Parts: sequence; C-alpha cells; structure tokens
Amino acid sequence: MSRVPLALERLITALGRLPGVGERTAARFAFHLLSEPPPIAAELADALVQLRAHVRFCDRCHHLADAALCAICSDPHRSSGDGHERICVVESVQDLLALERTGEHDGTYHVLHGALAPMRGVGPDQLRIASLLARVNAGGVAEIVLATNVDVEGEATALYLRRVLSGLPVAVTRIATGVPMGGELEYLDRVTLGRAFRERRSA
Amino acid sequence: MSRVPLALERLITALGRLPGVGERTAARFAFHLLSEPPPIAAELADALVQLRAHVRFCDRCHHLADAALCAICSDPHRSSGDGHERICVVESVQDLLALERTGEHDGTYHVLHGALAPMRGVGPDQLRIASLLARVNAGGVAEIVLATNVDVEGEATALYLRRVLSGLPVAVTRIATGVPMGGELEYLDRVTLGRAFRERRSA
Repeated sequence: MSRVPLALERLITALGRLPGVGERTAARFAFHLLSEPPPIAAELADALVQLRAHVRFCDRCHHLADAALCAICSDPHRSSGDGHERICVVESVQDLLALERTGEHDGTYHVLHGALAPMRGVGPDQLRIASLLARVNAGGVAEIVLATNVDVEGEATALYLRRVLSGLPVAVTRIATGVPMGGELEYLDRVTLGRAFRERRSA
Repeated sequence: MSRVPLALERLITALGRLPGVGERTAARFAFHLLSEPPPIAAELADALVQLRAHVRFCDRCHHLADAALCAICSDPHRSSGDGHERICVVESVQDLLALERTGEHDGTYHVLHGALAPMRGVGPDQLRIASLLARVNAGGVAEIVLATNVDVEGEATALYLRRVLSGLPVAVTRIATGVPMGGELEYLDRVTLGRAFRERRSA
C-alpha cells in the first residue's frame, strides 16, 4: 500500500486490526470512507472516542452499562426484590445479548467474562464468580440458570458453579442440551436457543 | 441490539455503514474494540479525523496526495520533464494502486474518478478529462496508456479518449486484452495485470 498519503495508510493499518479484516478489506473500508460525505467518518471517529468515555461495566452483573447499574439491573420488572429473582449466568456480553433476543428470560444476568480454562491460566479467581456468590448470599435469588457455552470450557465452568452453589438455598438449573456440542451461543438461531432456555433442566 | 449502552449502539451503527458490514459483524468489531487496550480504538478514531485533514487530490493527476502534488507526480524519476512522459489513465485510485503493484509502469498517472456511463448520467464533464487534455497540450507527453477497466463502461471511456486524443501529437495505447471481459483491475492478480500492461497495443 505504498504511494498513498500517510494519513490514508494509517487508517488502513488501524482498520486492519479489526477481527477478520485484512489489508485488502481495510483498504476498501478506507476508500469507502474517503468517498462518503465527511460526517460519516467523523461520526465513526466520535463513536470510538465516546465508547471509552461512556461504556462501563454494571456493578452488579458486569454487563455493559451507561451508569453504575446496567439497563437490565436497573429495570424494576427484571430485578424484582420479591425474593423470586432468576439470574442467568453467561460467559460474555455477546451471549447475554443472544439470550435477550430469545425473549425467554425476564430476570437478570451475571456475566462471568470468560470460562474456566486451566490450560490458559483462567481459574475461578479470573472470572466474576465471587460477586455471583455474594448476590446469592445477599438473598432474594430463587434460581440460577447456568447458560455457559456447551463446550469443554463452558461445561467445566457449569460443573464448578454447580458445586460452589450446591450448599446455598437456590435452585440451580442448566440450559437444555438442545444446544449442540461445540456450539457457541452467540451464533445460534433464536428458536433453538430459546427452546434450550425453556427446557433448562435441574443441575 | 437493545439493552447495550447508547455509546456502544452508536459505534455499531457507525461501523455498520462500512461496505459489506452487517449488524452482526459491526457488533463483533465493536466488542473487539471494547476488549482491546484503549489505544487501539483511539488510534482508529485519530486516523479517521486525520484522514480528512491531510488527504487531498493531486492538482495534476487527481491521485490521493499529501500536498499539491502526489508522491508520483513529485518524483522526478517518474515525472521527467524530458518530453518522454508516459501517462497511464485509470478510472480509480484503487486501479492506480493495482498497477503500481505490478511494477511495470515508471511514468505518471491520470485518475478519471469514474468511467463514462450515460445511463447513470456520467458524461465526459463528470470525469477528469479536461485536465488530461491540458496535460497533453502542455507538451512533453510521449504516450497515453488507456488502462480503464475492460468492461462496457471502461471500453466506452477508452474509445472516447482515443477519439479526443487522436488529433494530438501523442501515442495512444490500450492495455492488452489479457484482462478478461468484465474484469475489475483492482482485483486482478499482479502477473495477469502486469502482462496486460506490457502487451499494450496501439489504440
């Protein structure tokens, strides 16, 4: 990509850091941004700057949030204080959003931000597990739905959580194995995922 | 993409305007930028801002440039004043870069920024043709290589240029038809494209 202005080369390099984007695609993005009216690139630039300034993690469930609590935790219809709260435990924000698209869950979430992977040095202390136990110990939680991926790491994580939660006064369930082995929740169609959520079994 | 912070939603919308990027891919880009160290997103934002501030078109050939003249026009080895200048006429900057990758052309370029397309209202006045004729009339040009795409619009453009250049003291050539019909120069492998350039025929 020689003989183009330095500013364009810098943009192509920066765009090339996006996942799955090679130099050719990055160049196509850059030329597109050059040919569009200036506000298109300016808006993208501004959105990138605002991202860090305005996105944080929810103090309670670790979902992305605008404020101390995320939109779900601050919704009184989702996070009822009547002792019947149902917390759905997921590995990532993307998995949370995939479950939200099914419309099956009207409770809250808890985002672990990962799964147990001893080979990669990810143990219980690297996940948001302590805060999950604290939420359960604080009372008011009726059910924990383990919605980690149905792969080796996700199953190990579910097994671990089942064990640490076993002594506590809360029902622990696991999403149904309608989810195929090796499947990633984020990419599953909503019907299969919704059905797996409805058919969750006692863990 | 409900229930995510507004700033994230804005970024996903902005990324979704890139060519070939749907909401799912835009979300993947956004989550990647969230999970990377902050400088990655900041650099991309800065590159987008700098793009408009520092990229302009060359006053002579209409290629992208840092200054009044592009890197090629300001290179004395490319733009010799000895009356033997060879100008390669292309439809787009992307086509120019594709030809540069072949290493076959040591002269200058002229970027038309389009091709004749009467059906879409693109006539000679919408292309950078007047400035090409001015360059030829100013003297010192030995050859014009017509390297427009070998498709209907590109062939029509080459035909038109051949006609308007016919009265002028300059050799007019066309890249060889080694380029397949319907082929876009930008995506051709460099061997085929380089060969087509070497085997250019009298027009």
